[in-house]
Amino acid sequence: MDHKITWVKPEEIEARSMELIEQEMPSGSWSWEERQVVRRCIHTSADFDYAKNLYFSQEAVEHALQVLKKGGFTIVTDTNMAASGINKRALAALHGQVRCFMADADVDREAKERGITRAAVSMEHAAALSGPLMIASGNAPTALIRLNELMAADRIHPEIVIAVPVGFVNVIESKEAIIRSGVPCIVARGRKGGSNIAAAICNALMYLVTGYTSVG
Amino acid sequence: MDHKITWVKPEEIEARSMELIEQEMPSGSWSWEERQVVRRCIHTSADFDYAKNLYFSQEAVEHALQVLKKGGFTIVTDTNMAASGINKRALAALHGQVRCFMADADVDREAKERGITRAAVSMEHAAALSGPLMIASGNAPTALIRLNELMAADRIHPEIVIAVPVGFVNVIESKEAIIRSGVPCIVARGRKGGSNIAAAICNALMYLVTGYTSVG
Repeated sequence: MDHKITWVKPEEIEARSMELIEQEMPSGSWSWEERQVVRRCIHTSADFDYAKNLYFSQEAVEHALQVLKKGGFTIVTDTNMAASGINKRALAALHGQVRCFMADADVDREAKERGITRAAVSMEHAAALSGPLMIASGNAPTALIRLNELMAADRIHPEIVIAVPVGFVNVIESKEAIIRSGVPCIVARGRKGGSNIAAAICNALMYLVTGYTSVG
Repeated sequence: MDHKITWVKPEEIEARSMELIEQEMPSGSWSWEERQVVRRCIHTSADFDYAKNLYFSQEAVEHALQVLKKGGFTIVTDTNMAASGINKRALAALHGQVRCFMADADVDREAKERGITRAAVSMEHAAALSGPLMIASGNAPTALIRLNELMAADRIHPEIVIAVPVGFVNVIESKEAIIRSGVPCIVARGRKGGSNIAAAICNALMYLVTGYTSVG
């Protein structure tokens, strides 16, 4: 097989990629906005399973876009990697911020003392924040499990939960529990997901409001 | 379907996940060390395609482990997200560092002036570093294309290239060019890869030397 490199202008690479993704994506029953979210998950993974496994609760995307438009929101992630992948220019344009408590010394200490994960403790820190809250979990089912408990106890009220942890232990279960909770959510059903997917969904939503892309 | 959450101690989640991955992985023809790398890519993506698409040049892993053992190396990534995903505790234990030039103002300026990508300019910055060099590309085929040119011109001599960009435009081609170059390399053939995969491979290699895991 010949593997010849074709010159593509830097600013055109993403658009070209999206065209190629569109050609392989099913027509689906998504809204136009939901489709942009699906497409960006495929863009970040080259994995077309995201055209099958992404669940959107009714009007979750519409609601998230309203929250982003109003500004002043906080996205809480369960890895620094996801926080790092969130487009800071789009975030600043929307007057939003991203927080991740995973590497905080007090979170680590408390997790060890209580024999729970740092991700679970992180959700309690998220509950103490003021202003509109978006939870983006790409890693830790224990974050979602604790989040569900805190929601049930009326201690946290996220505007939307992006529930896309990846893995093999309690991952499917924790995502299904988020769906059942009734919170507005975007969920990668099954085992797949990841920090890259969590960041991609946050970015897709922000790009819908700002008109930005990952290249500018 | 019943989705019941099973309590698993935080420190046991990763080991349990790895057991489940092992059950589904083919026996393969990998060395034990290569198998750990494959396993960690699956762990970070829940995508068993990595049991099929990962290419290891002969003794690439053995060579990488030698470089890590000696310390004083620099891992250069093509996204801040990949840099963020690299385990800093393992890195410090090995007296290594990670660098990413993508967000540097001068890289951005130079890329715009020359009409090339920031990732391509980044590789030139990498070439100016002293000490053993590991390139970990999870995002930008243009980084690999420029890297190949710099290697051909004898301007950069990486100890190993982790070539796992994800995507649709020149991705396959740039990876195959790295394989053909003869540099020690670990490559996710095809479209798949990503910053998470690049970080996972770096971490798998470091864990092999340090005995660490992602949880401690």
